[in-house]
Amino acid sequence: MLTVNAYAAPSATEPLIRTTIQRRDLGPKDVLIEIAYAGICHSDIHTVRGDWGPQQYPLTVGHEIVGFVTEVGSEVAGHEVGDRVGVGCMVNSCRECVNCLAGQEQYCLKGNTGTYGSVDRDGTITQGGYSTHVVVDEDFVLRVPENIPFEAAAPLLCAGITTYSPLAHWNAGPGKKVAVVGLGGLGHMAVKIAHAMGAEVTVLSQTLSKKDDGLRLGADHYFATSDPATFEQLANNFDLIINTVSAVIDLDAYLSLLALDGTLVNVGAPPEALPIHVFTLFGNRRSFAGSGIGSIGETQEMLDFCAEHGIAPETELIGADDINAAYERVLASDVRYRFVIDITTLR
Amino acid sequence: MLTVNAYAAPSATEPLIRTTIQRRDLGPKDVLIEIAYAGICHSDIHTVRGDWGPQQYPLTVGHEIVGFVTEVGSEVAGHEVGDRVGVGCMVNSCRECVNCLAGQEQYCLKGNTGTYGSVDRDGTITQGGYSTHVVVDEDFVLRVPENIPFEAAAPLLCAGITTYSPLAHWNAGPGKKVAVVGLGGLGHMAVKIAHAMGAEVTVLSQTLSKKDDGLRLGADHYFATSDPATFEQLANNFDLIINTVSAVIDLDAYLSLLALDGTLVNVGAPPEALPIHVFTLFGNRRSFAGSGIGSIGETQEMLDFCAEHGIAPETELIGADDINAAYERVLASDVRYRFVIDITTLR
Repeated sequence: MLTVNAYAAPSATEPLIRTTIQRRDLGPKDVLIEIAYAGICHSDIHTVRGDWGPQQYPLTVGHEIVGFVTEVGSEVAGHEVGDRVGVGCMVNSCRECVNCLAGQEQYCLKGNTGTYGSVDRDGTITQGGYSTHVVVDEDFVLRVPENIPFEAAAPLLCAGITTYSPLAHWNAGPGKKVAVVGLGGLGHMAVKIAHAMGAEVTVLSQTLSKKDDGLRLGADHYFATSDPATFEQLANNFDLIINTVSAVIDLDAYLSLLALDGTLVNVGAPPEALPIHVFTLFGNRRSFAGSGIGSIGETQEMLDFCAEHGIAPETELIGADDINAAYERVLASDVRYRFVIDITTLR
Repeated sequence: MLTVNAYAAPSATEPLIRTTIQRRDLGPKDVLIEIAYAGICHSDIHTVRGDWGPQQYPLTVGHEIVGFVTEVGSEVAGHEVGDRVGVGCMVNSCRECVNCLAGQEQYCLKGNTGTYGSVDRDGTITQGGYSTHVVVDEDFVLRVPENIPFEAAAPLLCAGITTYSPLAHWNAGPGKKVAVVGLGGLGHMAVKIAHAMGAEVTVLSQTLSKKDDGLRLGADHYFATSDPATFEQLANNFDLIINTVSAVIDLDAYLSLLALDGTLVNVGAPPEALPIHVFTLFGNRRSFAGSGIGSIGETQEMLDFCAEHGIAPETELIGADDINAAYERVLASDVRYRFVIDITTLR
């Protein structure tokens, strides 16, 4: 067992604190990673605060992880000491169900093993990336291309793949009109990726306060959803809408913006039930769908796509002792667009 | 103007009564149809009772219409006097919007002209098929193949196309597992059509009371949704679920039965909002969609498909004076599976 420095939540209501956690001894297929950077995802906050269900504490979160391989197990074939690697939202899956066998292990029917707060194969609770080291099965370790700035690569492992996967699955590309609801951590990546895929991109944000940013990131159009005229003007307009907002919004209003056979995909994860009128779906044969992260194969594809197109998230680098303050700013939507923790400050 | 016998609702709360209504003079593109049979659709009842919004009364409903052409306008090219024809849920559309131009006039962006209760191009309110004659633009008149029993052909114009269209669009066929929720007028057609398309068909009904019927109609499996074990046993199972129920059901429970990339399509039309948890959609990347009837082209395709496969709805023939009693039985789910009015009883 390896004892490593970490930042953990002692409970659902207390601030995170410096502590130490245990990492398992390297198995033959395991990779030991010295973490360089870890992104702060809104999911981290939802999880530690118990919004998505009860947790075992203390809990170290963080599932946007990049670092260097420092040791490999005896059977590891795909990674070497010194490699720049990443770990995202999952670290294992059953590898036997139809979804795993189809290479869609993010949808493992037994539930994939989350990077934190999941029951690991040894029965312990997985602990995330706000720590100096992590041990991960090599099949769930990604290669981070050299030309992606390292601290900017971290958020790609969640915010990047969570938006890339539905954009790719629902065929964003030339001739397609894509709307992105919410210009936060996920939304700003959705704009960059959809633009790089060749789609015509519209941001739908509460106000026009980030309009200059949105256009700079690659959006062709930017509308305020606080203005009712937006919904009249854009009715029946989009082939695909990516909703990144993790709060209850008036879905019927957004669905009405879809053109024939259009799909609104939620990647935001409000715990509450969302009311929908089926009459809204009857018009234009609309669909409302969900999408969760992406497979390991698709995550590697996304990293390579971002490297090829020079795409990286916009980040604000913080030290580990700034985590609690950063959480408050995330909750206040006061971040452009992703906090990344410099993990050397934990050593 | 032609004055013809009809059965009409005087208000949202009174029984339907015998009356007369006006049909417009034949335009150059119009067809005059002497109606032989008209099906009773649950939508007729929802509409006359104002469940889907206020109506102008008196109102004659009925949008499952078959009859014989008795006169054609000077420019009619596709139909001749004596032809067996049908009229479904719409009698016109704008013909200019992107959806009309794409041959999907059922999703006309200006709203298609419904067979009853819609504002017609002459400003009058359209009146439906519970009457001896109807005048319809030839482009919205279908050919009814000879080998479909005529009284059974009527319900194909709504119940048939409403289920055929989503089954075709979402690729029901060999190797696909399709569930049909509710074994009523729409449900029993969905079972027959999905079976004929080659899919493995499961009926999900409140109880097992119609199980023998369901299996006879072509279902491979039949489960009671009143039994919680059904939802455990069938979790992650279906590629496509057609929900024909026009009441609020626990959609999360039904969505959880979808396999990877599966879609639940609502053709039932409850006016209330339906609550959905996006976490249900995250699993297996599920979709919830709506589908409304089908295009005229697809309706003709459906009629030809039913003729080729020997598919017809199971009907109970009634006289016009039985309409009010039939409505009560539809509301009590006491019909196997579609009432059809013998319109000769109106002459």
